[in-house]
Amino acid sequence: MKEGNNDCKGLSRRKMLIGTGALAAGAALTQFGGFIKPAMATGGKTEKWPWPYEKLDPAKTAEICYNEWYRVFCGAAVINSVVSQLREKVGEPYTSFPADAFVFLEGGQLGWGTICGSPAGANIVANLIIGPRISGAHEGHLIAADIMQWYSETALPTFTPKHPKISATLPTTTSQSPLCHISVGKWMKEANKALKSPERKDRCARVAASTAYRLVELLNDWKDGKYESTSDFSCAKENGITGQFNCMECHGNDVPEAPSPTKS
Amino acid sequence: MKEGNNDCKGLSRRKMLIGTGALAAGAALTQFGGFIKPAMATGGKTEKWPWPYEKLDPAKTAEICYNEWYRVFCGAAVINSVVSQLREKVGEPYTSFPADAFVFLEGGQLGWGTICGSPAGANIVANLIIGPRISGAHEGHLIAADIMQWYSETALPTFTPKHPKISATLPTTTSQSPLCHISVGKWMKEANKALKSPERKDRCARVAASTAYRLVELLNDWKDGKYESTSDFSCAKENGITGQFNCMECHGNDVPEAPSPTKS
Repeated sequence: MKEGNNDCKGLSRRKMLIGTGALAAGAALTQFGGFIKPAMATGGKTEKWPWPYEKLDPAKTAEICYNEWYRVFCGAAVINSVVSQLREKVGEPYTSFPADAFVFLEGGQLGWGTICGSPAGANIVANLIIGPRISGAHEGHLIAADIMQWYSETALPTFTPKHPKISATLPTTTSQSPLCHISVGKWMKEANKALKSPERKDRCARVAASTAYRLVELLNDWKDGKYESTSDFSCAKENGITGQFNCMECHGNDVPEAPSPTKS
Repeated sequence: MKEGNNDCKGLSRRKMLIGTGALAAGAALTQFGGFIKPAMATGGKTEKWPWPYEKLDPAKTAEICYNEWYRVFCGAAVINSVVSQLREKVGEPYTSFPADAFVFLEGGQLGWGTICGSPAGANIVANLIIGPRISGAHEGHLIAADIMQWYSETALPTFTPKHPKISATLPTTTSQSPLCHISVGKWMKEANKALKSPERKDRCARVAASTAYRLVELLNDWKDGKYESTSDFSCAKENGITGQFNCMECHGNDVPEAPSPTKS
């Protein structure tokens, strides 16, 4: 860690950045060394961006996602909640996108507890529709970064379905991380409910639905030309390594110093 | 943590399991509560599995992946190294799969340091081709779990390209995790090279290539009908929460106890 950067938690990290939107965009685009190449066609007929998008209703999308969770779990539920509607409204290329293949995003990928399937699925959707940053459009990348930060900093779930499978009120928790293990673990501790409990499953279905809701809000803003990036964080720029914003949550006070660029 | 389960590192976790293949399959399929529903058609015309697959050369695939890294980075490089060849050998549905959309997998998703893009990309490919577990085929799910464990336990990179951009020998490191932050961080510490260094970039290109090589070995075995799952780990079954295998690497000795299923 660099001097003055030992507390990378919460608001302090924002002090290192001047402004938000424009700088965040720059950070996102150059965080791995600053080289950006123009898009190259590789023969994929759906690799022309943006894909046609029609605005969706966030609440309807979240309802679809909530119910889809019980069929395909978090990641594929978020993807299908958007893709299934756009198959009806638009058709191709959504009809050809194999959304159900992404069931494996469950449990932080096959139960390994890495990135929660909800942001992982949302990141896929944003980049499918708007395209990768190498295509020249940056908003897909930026919306995904916004989703990662929103997921980490929001008391989840924010969405309650019309006909919940669990009638009791479920607690909300702020994960301070996009990782499944941490997000689910903090909620299980707060709720005192086991992984296999109906309450934990419904919590995760609602978290997926909450994420789909937020994703569609951002996509609708992009469609209306009024999207502005809100993420204000680049671990690579600030700490010289990829990572989340709160180093000390895992490292305690013993945060390793990344090798300096001058040593390279 | 349950009694006797405080050391979940390395070989000790294997002692909790009797056998490997068959039990690993069962673990993977039931780790979120044991309910498996039959596949349901949702209208996607590519959602019929398995996709046609022709065996690929692992070394050739790894070479393609290595070079693709410098265009689309880890996750999309792994995906494209397989998809680009199958577009030529097979055609659809590979031609319609938007592989370049997955650039955002870089840096553990947009630089957030979660799952390394290399296993994330490999997991996508395995499940695209073989299908999700809800389709009735389990090998895509199991190959992805194998990749997660292989990535965590292998001194990487294992692959050296024919014409490397960095001529010096690069050190190898065993991440003990599929997370980008941990994998890259351990390598940077060993090599004393910065994130922006050409050596770190080439190391990640070779890790992607190594992962593509391993993925194709597994897919070829599956095609030949001789694939057997080697992953032997389910954090949900062993510890009551999603996660990786070495709790104490992040938690130290203070590993929280997950709420018991009887409390649900």
